[in-house]
Order: sequence, then structure tokens, then C-alpha cells
Amino acid sequence: MDDTRQVDDVATGDARQVDAVVTGDARHNEKMKKKQESREKIMAGKTREKGLLIVHTGKGKGKTSAALGMVVRAIGHGMKVGVVQFVKGAMTTGEKVVFDAFPDNVEFKPMGEGFTWDTQDRARDVAVAREAWEEVKRMIADPGYHMVLADELNIVLRYDYLPLDEVLEVFAAKDAMKHVIVTGRNAPDALMEAADLVTEMTMIKHPFRSGVKAQAGIEF
Amino acid sequence: MDDTRQVDDVATGDARQVDAVVTGDARHNEKMKKKQESREKIMAGKTREKGLLIVHTGKGKGKTSAALGMVVRAIGHGMKVGVVQFVKGAMTTGEKVVFDAFPDNVEFKPMGEGFTWDTQDRARDVAVAREAWEEVKRMIADPGYHMVLADELNIVLRYDYLPLDEVLEVFAAKDAMKHVIVTGRNAPDALMEAADLVTEMTMIKHPFRSGVKAQAGIEF
Repeated sequence: MDDTRQVDDVATGDARQVDAVVTGDARHNEKMKKKQESREKIMAGKTREKGLLIVHTGKGKGKTSAALGMVVRAIGHGMKVGVVQFVKGAMTTGEKVVFDAFPDNVEFKPMGEGFTWDTQDRARDVAVAREAWEEVKRMIADPGYHMVLADELNIVLRYDYLPLDEVLEVFAAKDAMKHVIVTGRNAPDALMEAADLVTEMTMIKHPFRSGVKAQAGIEF
Repeated sequence: MDDTRQVDDVATGDARQVDAVVTGDARHNEKMKKKQESREKIMAGKTREKGLLIVHTGKGKGKTSAALGMVVRAIGHGMKVGVVQFVKGAMTTGEKVVFDAFPDNVEFKPMGEGFTWDTQDRARDVAVAREAWEEVKRMIADPGYHMVLADELNIVLRYDYLPLDEVLEVFAAKDAMKHVIVTGRNAPDALMEAADLVTEMTMIKHPFRSGVKAQAGIEF
């Protein structure tokens, strides 16, 4: 098992007190030895496996991209993943080409018919959201799926296109080993409360502000 | 072109003032119409294409995952991508299986020989970092690559395994249309200054804190 990423996340944080300026190789090596001991102690307590409810929110980039990265890892481990997009059009995006290369591992449902400010028809948007949500529910209920990505579900919840209580109930009742990922800015507090892992993506600097348009490989 | 993601990022922010509580379908539709107008105005000014220097930093999850998501999108658009991992072992991770399915599009170089606190040998770590950096330099110099991911380069810079000045010079001299992505916590200020797009991943909640171990599809 390759635990390095998570080890990095924890050990770097917990061992910060030994991060003084390195003055020589010997001192550096001693420091690293302390980090290793600290890490081993931490790892010994991490034994549980469970399906996670994961939320990517915030105004920054990378919410969907990070979910895609997890989908890619899951595919690589032979898992079956369901992907439902709530608010994107059904255009062929970059990720679809990769999903299509693993038809046994990914079921991709681009359900959203463009953004709401393109349709200006709330009743239709609610119907579309409902249809997408039924797909998510089906995938969560089906033991064949190891991971389900509800992309941009937060935006749908923000506009009250779906009842939050129903969504929370479905997540609470999911199989204990199933991973569910929800993306989109403005995640409801109750969803973050229910989640196991919440990451907020914060925009520090954005090229769009200086007139650069959306580009292949970055935004789509 | 599918500009919906970037449109979401901008229009949702700029049109927040019209996000009052929805009291009926007609009012909602009117609100969405205003959003659409606002978006169209914004989009008209976004015309430039350029290669981006992208930094994913912060203590939260998703820095590498979000970069992987961008790699997947680039693959889907037929681009050629170089991926160099600075501090991970050469184990078979989930992403490698997917990369291997697109041998013409991805060159994957897992260069890091485990974390420094496992090796406790600074001189060797510096040599490994140098070797990995030479791969990044080669990919940046080669016009055949559209995107280069230097995964966890920030950690290597933090330990002064590579001279920051040299790294910044190489990035500054890159082809204007090439995308370069750098990940890892503690990105140097000068790198963020030079970057076009900087996203900070902030950990709001982490299952590792409650004894859950690293799991396939999530961390690796």
C-alpha cells in the first residue's frame, strides 16, 4: 500500500516543530529520523477502512478536477464508479474520452442541460435536477458501485431544486463502504456536517481576471 | 467550446447581488436572465489563450488529485502531458493504470524514492530531486509536450533540495502556450507570484483524524 500522500498530510503538519533551518546533512538526517518516528506512531492508530462522504467546495478551481482525480485512482484500482453531472451540458469534454476507455469501470451521466441562467425556466431545472438525483440514488443503492460522484450537486441544492433533507437521508443510509463525492461551491452546512472529508478550494489568483479565456485541458 | 465551468466561477461571483431568496418561478427566471446578461458581458472580454503556470498548494487534500483531473482533461483533448512525481515511491498507483491506457499522451516519471524521513540521507535526496527536475526541464523544453505536471515540487523546494531561482528561471522561459502545474503544500511566495493561477486547498474536515486509514481510490 502506498500511504505516502496521507502520511505527508499528517506527518508534515504534526512534525512542524522540528522544521528548523537545516544547517547540515547530519542535522537534517536527525530531523528526518524524528519525522519518521512521529509518522510511525501516527500510522499505528489508523486502521479503519470506511466509505467516505467527501465534499469539495469553495470558490476556487479544482473542485471537480480533484474529484476526477479520485475517479481516476478508483478506476486504476478496478473499482466501479458512477459519475453524474448536475449542471453541465452533454458536450464531449476531456474527461469523457478517458471514461470511455474504461467502460466497465465508469458510468458517466451528463444530466444537466446547461446552466440555469441559460434556460430561465425553473420548473424545467427542477425536473432535470430530479432526474439526475434519481441516477445518483440508483448508483448509491446498487452494490456494484464503489464510488459515486455527484458533480455540482451543491449548486442544485443552493437553488432548492432538490430537498436537502432527502439528499442527507440518502447519504446517511448509504452502504458503509461506499465513497460518495459531492462538488460545487456553497455546500450546505448540514452536508458539511454529515461529511467525513471536506476540502475548500480557495482562489488565490485567477487568469480569467486578466482576460484569459477557458482553455482545453484546464477548464474542460 | 464548453465554457460552463469557468462561466460558473465568474458569473456566480459577479452576480451574487441578485441572489435573493426565490419567491416564485417568474422572479427566478428574471434573476437567471440577469445572470445570463452579466455572464455574456464578462465572456466578451475573455479572448486570450495562453499557457498557464498553475500552483496547487495548502494543507488540504486534492492538490495532486486536481492536477490529475487536469491531466485527464488534457489527455481527452489529445494533448501530450509529462508527469514527474518528486516525492512518491515508484509503486503502481491508481493513476498509473489510467496513464498506461494512453501511452501516446502521457509520459509518467515517478522519480521520488519515498519520503525524506524514510531515507534520512539529504545528499541522496538532493540527487533524486535534481534527477526529477532534469526530467521536468526536458519536458518543458520539448515542444512536443502541451502540459507538464511537477507533482510535489513544492516540498522539494521547501527543503532547498533545488535552487528556487533556477526553477523560476525555467518557468519564466517556458513556451508561452505550455501549461505547467506545480503541486505541494508550502508553495514559495515567489512561485505564487510568478503563477497565473493559484489555488489553496484548505482542510475543513479530515477522516484521518478519526482513525480512518488511507484507502484505494481516495489517497492512492
